[in-house]
Amino acid sequence: MKRIAIDAMGGENAPKAIIDGILRVKAELPNTKFILFGDKEEIRKYLPADQITDQFEVVPTTEIINDEDEPVKAIRSKKDSSMVVAANYVKQGKADALFSLGNTGALLACGIFIIGRIKGISRPGLMPTLPAQNNDNGFNIIDVGANAKSKPEYILQWAQMATFYAEKIRNIENPRVALLNNGAESDKGDEVHQAAYKLLADSDLNFIGNIEGNEIMTGKADVVATDGFSGNIALKSVEGMSSVLLHSLKDSLLNNGLMTKLGALMIKNAIGDLRSKYDTAKHGGAVLLGVNSPVVKTHGRSNERPVYYTLKQIDKMLDENLVDEFKKEFSNK
Amino acid sequence: MKRIAIDAMGGENAPKAIIDGILRVKAELPNTKFILFGDKEEIRKYLPADQITDQFEVVPTTEIINDEDEPVKAIRSKKDSSMVVAANYVKQGKADALFSLGNTGALLACGIFIIGRIKGISRPGLMPTLPAQNNDNGFNIIDVGANAKSKPEYILQWAQMATFYAEKIRNIENPRVALLNNGAESDKGDEVHQAAYKLLADSDLNFIGNIEGNEIMTGKADVVATDGFSGNIALKSVEGMSSVLLHSLKDSLLNNGLMTKLGALMIKNAIGDLRSKYDTAKHGGAVLLGVNSPVVKTHGRSNERPVYYTLKQIDKMLDENLVDEFKKEFSNK
Repeated sequence: MKRIAIDAMGGENAPKAIIDGILRVKAELPNTKFILFGDKEEIRKYLPADQITDQFEVVPTTEIINDEDEPVKAIRSKKDSSMVVAANYVKQGKADALFSLGNTGALLACGIFIIGRIKGISRPGLMPTLPAQNNDNGFNIIDVGANAKSKPEYILQWAQMATFYAEKIRNIENPRVALLNNGAESDKGDEVHQAAYKLLADSDLNFIGNIEGNEIMTGKADVVATDGFSGNIALKSVEGMSSVLLHSLKDSLLNNGLMTKLGALMIKNAIGDLRSKYDTAKHGGAVLLGVNSPVVKTHGRSNERPVYYTLKQIDKMLDENLVDEFKKEFSNK
Repeated sequence: MKRIAIDAMGGENAPKAIIDGILRVKAELPNTKFILFGDKEEIRKYLPADQITDQFEVVPTTEIINDEDEPVKAIRSKKDSSMVVAANYVKQGKADALFSLGNTGALLACGIFIIGRIKGISRPGLMPTLPAQNNDNGFNIIDVGANAKSKPEYILQWAQMATFYAEKIRNIENPRVALLNNGAESDKGDEVHQAAYKLLADSDLNFIGNIEGNEIMTGKADVVATDGFSGNIALKSVEGMSSVLLHSLKDSLLNNGLMTKLGALMIKNAIGDLRSKYDTAKHGGAVLLGVNSPVVKTHGRSNERPVYYTLKQIDKMLDENLVDEFKKEFSNK
């Protein structure tokens, strides 16, 4: 039986959203056990005794890592936090994957320092799957913030792991890989990007060259490799712009008189289409690639829907033995 | 009389868009002369002889730098191009500012290598003014791509110049300055960002700390200072996301049946509001700050409207003696 260690206390809607997500998915994943870490009383509120089958295990913990906590300090000092105890379960082989909606930095630290990186991987990288305009499968972008600074070799490894993920988990054939850069030509960017370009071009990846910030959302590439710092800026910039535009559209629709309000009702289907096209939840959470077990993060403000999709995503990573494949691939180098 | 050297051949709609923009603005700027560089015949098509007053001068040139040209090579080999001859006019003191809709890299090269950087400025920086959700005055972001790599000192100088611009040209009192980074805390980013943070905090600028990609479009800061590379990624990412969303919205409105189409007509005012709120044209073009005269670039696909606003922006920079102020401020250091 596959076993997913779940931080039940992470995120704004914990533990309700998390438990609701599990209840929604459990029948689809009958060979998976959900190990919940957190406040026993709180968990019981949303997971009544009669719902607890052998697909569940609850491990009581007494502490919570908050978003305000300094990541590395928190995982060292809050030894009995839901996140750290869950990570230790994975480390000790009592669970196969770690899932949290909590403090991203702390989760990355759990992955890197507790679960540990795969031998041969220089730096684990954080990788979400984002929706794209011309590609219903979306695209992967790695790294988006586990690293503030990178070397060309890191970027190549991230592209390799993400390509494997795109093939096995997203069923993309021969994924197109691009390097996030400040221009199209091969000599663009600083020496790190120029060297990364060469490594990618010389690899057996399906490298299509540099990609600029304005092209990432179109779906031109299946995998966008970044230097970590600018990947974080790109991800947050597109999230911010999308939020700003949709809020402003809503404001405009509400503040332009009755006719506009009526019009707004009439375009509901179109807005629904748009929402479903750019639905980030259906692609699951962001994966920390390069550590000894899958470590996955979903937005702290998620309700049960992203939790549902993320659990399916994690389950598929376990089915495909993603981490074992990475170990085989990188440990011998 | 102020004299603006204008590359009449740059951009997709040259020379028509450029000439139309000048014709629209000229009555508002009676003390300004527009010196047009380009193909004489082409210019004459849109600027008939009876329109040529003493506000105009046409300098015939025989070559054009295209978007495909390698910037530095192009300005060296195409000596009689409209852009290079215009830049030389500025260098020789026969014009006071340079304006083009052409190849950005080539224009930056004209600014840095022909017009020259101000003594005391380490690296000129490219700075657009962008619209913001909660700030009708928009905000400045610098550098967005003149530099692929930067030092903390460059970032400080860019913030200083942009602050001065925000005060004098955009009439912002005590502009709030933020550093584009991958997190809020002062120790975020690599050593360049950590050191830049310290320099900004110790300066007499109104530094409000780090800003993340998702916050830049809200208007939280009046000036966003970046490392150049990630500034380019941020700018293009928000442009790309906005274009993708608006296109998808349009598609959805057109492909959801008659009721939706009717609804789309009824929300026209709201869309108009949105369009005007995020109208980039009204803020003018992107300025290369740190060179001996104003050098300004507007989108290559612009029609006459952005040209109109950019000419007013350049005129104001000349009125405020922006470059002289920079020379005073930085040359003595």
